[in-house]
Amino acid sequence: MSQNYPSPVDPAKLTADLIRCPSVTPEEGGALRLLQALLESAGFACTRVDRNGIANLYARWGAKAHARTFGFNGHTDVVPVGDEAAWTVGPFSAEEKDGMIWGRGATDMKSGVAAFAAAAVDFISETPPDGAVVLTITGDEEGDALDGTTALLDWMDDQGERMSVCLVGEPTCPDQMGEMMKIGRRGSMTVWYSFTGIQGHSAYPHRANNPLHAMARLMDRLSSHVLDEGTDHFDPSTLAVVTMDTGNPATNVIPSRCAATVNIRFNDTHSGDSLTDWLQQEANRITQETGIEVDMEIKVSGESFLTPPGPLSDLVAASVEAETGIKPVLSTSGGTSDARFVKDHCPVVEFGLVGKTMHQVDERVPVTQIYQLKSIYTRILSDYFK
Amino acid sequence: MSQNYPSPVDPAKLTADLIRCPSVTPEEGGALRLLQALLESAGFACTRVDRNGIANLYARWGAKAHARTFGFNGHTDVVPVGDEAAWTVGPFSAEEKDGMIWGRGATDMKSGVAAFAAAAVDFISETPPDGAVVLTITGDEEGDALDGTTALLDWMDDQGERMSVCLVGEPTCPDQMGEMMKIGRRGSMTVWYSFTGIQGHSAYPHRANNPLHAMARLMDRLSSHVLDEGTDHFDPSTLAVVTMDTGNPATNVIPSRCAATVNIRFNDTHSGDSLTDWLQQEANRITQETGIEVDMEIKVSGESFLTPPGPLSDLVAASVEAETGIKPVLSTSGGTSDARFVKDHCPVVEFGLVGKTMHQVDERVPVTQIYQLKSIYTRILSDYFK
Repeated sequence: MSQNYPSPVDPAKLTADLIRCPSVTPEEGGALRLLQALLESAGFACTRVDRNGIANLYARWGAKAHARTFGFNGHTDVVPVGDEAAWTVGPFSAEEKDGMIWGRGATDMKSGVAAFAAAAVDFISETPPDGAVVLTITGDEEGDALDGTTALLDWMDDQGERMSVCLVGEPTCPDQMGEMMKIGRRGSMTVWYSFTGIQGHSAYPHRANNPLHAMARLMDRLSSHVLDEGTDHFDPSTLAVVTMDTGNPATNVIPSRCAATVNIRFNDTHSGDSLTDWLQQEANRITQETGIEVDMEIKVSGESFLTPPGPLSDLVAASVEAETGIKPVLSTSGGTSDARFVKDHCPVVEFGLVGKTMHQVDERVPVTQIYQLKSIYTRILSDYFK
Repeated sequence: MSQNYPSPVDPAKLTADLIRCPSVTPEEGGALRLLQALLESAGFACTRVDRNGIANLYARWGAKAHARTFGFNGHTDVVPVGDEAAWTVGPFSAEEKDGMIWGRGATDMKSGVAAFAAAAVDFISETPPDGAVVLTITGDEEGDALDGTTALLDWMDDQGERMSVCLVGEPTCPDQMGEMMKIGRRGSMTVWYSFTGIQGHSAYPHRANNPLHAMARLMDRLSSHVLDEGTDHFDPSTLAVVTMDTGNPATNVIPSRCAATVNIRFNDTHSGDSLTDWLQQEANRITQETGIEVDMEIKVSGESFLTPPGPLSDLVAASVEAETGIKPVLSTSGGTSDARFVKDHCPVVEFGLVGKTMHQVDERVPVTQIYQLKSIYTRILSDYFK
């Protein structure tokens, strides 16, 4: 392995080698084994923290639970390739073309994992710090995420392993390398509604009780409601009705049932519980007004969180600016990431490269960005342990 | 035929004979041929007025376009039998059991046709009036009704044939024989909506334009709107949203399209045109507010109409009361009937027996009601020509 990766470790080559591991969730695909071999050869103590068939890798250099432990978090699993025939190259071929490496996971986020693994290996061999470096790498971020980073964090709690701070290497830049980092994420919840009334003939609506009228009113109220105006570090919370369905083939029949789905992305003004209370009040109000029974099934897939601007974000932002010339915006936008789990363990921020092609056909990453990312991560380590 | 139907004509036997003709729309099934033979043997001039494969029968006794021409209207076509295995008897067997004749069309409306045909035949043979009696019987009332009663009325216009007044023999009584007649009907229209916005990720709703929010708001506005408070002879108009559909499997995707269907039953406060104007204004308002494109496809299946209480309704109501002891309510409730076409030709009212089992499995009619109905129709003819 050390022959394959002479010092310094080439993060572009490592990205390509990882892409060639077909690690579509929940398959390990050889990706974590490859990383474990590299890290062990560099002196990291590695442990596979597998749970319910999901592979996860914990790697530590330095003393356990050292007061200055810098952590990285990332994932090697990837989303399915989609329409394979539509790809310009084989999705696991990792071909280099037009200055880019092509393949599933090129941006999300095998390049990120490769960059922080390469940075960590080279940093500890060149300037061994007074502290520890921990890598938490999961094979279940794109799936249900029940046995991924949470399994690693649960195991760390059991073992007394700690990170003092953590940087998640997900892509964070919308268009240009360096323009954005994340210091928090909005929470996300989904609500599945079902409405039950009384079926009837549309010529005799007084004998029926139309659940569609209740659904229309509730969905209009929810989607018209201003949840908040945003906060210091968050955009306004948003609510989207994503389905309303009836499946009634007859125009002269008022159906007895219909269904809707609502997705909410919420900032730190709210919590899953506070929104559940509000949704229950609105549902009760509709039932009181219409007599229609409203059932809700609610799943909170992540609470909102914020690592307030401070030493960690300053450190990352300064390193990004030093390497790219661009001062990154401290953002909390976008979907969810495993930072939502890490935030309960230690302060966490996220920085990675441009994510434009993630989850798409012909996912690809400029080779220069991978080198830039390794440089940024190396500078962060260097400044952290200074 | 005259051997089969000795005077007086037995309307129960005629009902059973008609049920045995399997005349599911658009099949003639022998029903109109049976009636034509009976009516011709009684001295009626009969013409088959077929159009686009639909069979219709015109029968007149007396002088063409006589100033006192009493008309009956009805249909011999029936709706499909549905789940045949669920029937207690063969749906075209016309078995008599528990004092009732069972079979498809027993109430809707082979008994009605049998009753007015029997009444007309016996009346003109026993007390030939100074006037004419016309029977307009269609094989397309349960279907699209494009080539049924309208074909008969078109042909009558061409030929200079007229009815002075008309009685439609559809079932009109909700529970008890004699309790209700109809002097008009509400209009009916159906609107198919489609909403087009911009697809997007539910984490970035500001980049999408959600058609579901526009649909919810428009459907709530329409269903909350009070169209009217009813009029002298009409219940309030009603609007029912009968479908809202998306077909979106992903909770993190805002879809680009969704659809809804609305059914309106309207009284004489409105017309298809006035409601179309209102619906267009509401659709435009939603588009202005949301930027969502709203397309409407509108079908007006019948305008509302009213034959104001007067000589015709008095005549029918008095006959019903004399035969049943019950004074019928003058109603305009319920769905549509071919009276919506006849009203452009001459004053029209509707009276028939109890319709409880119409369109259902085990449709059936008490034999006594058929005899009572023939007596009522006979008395109406007698009083009309007095």
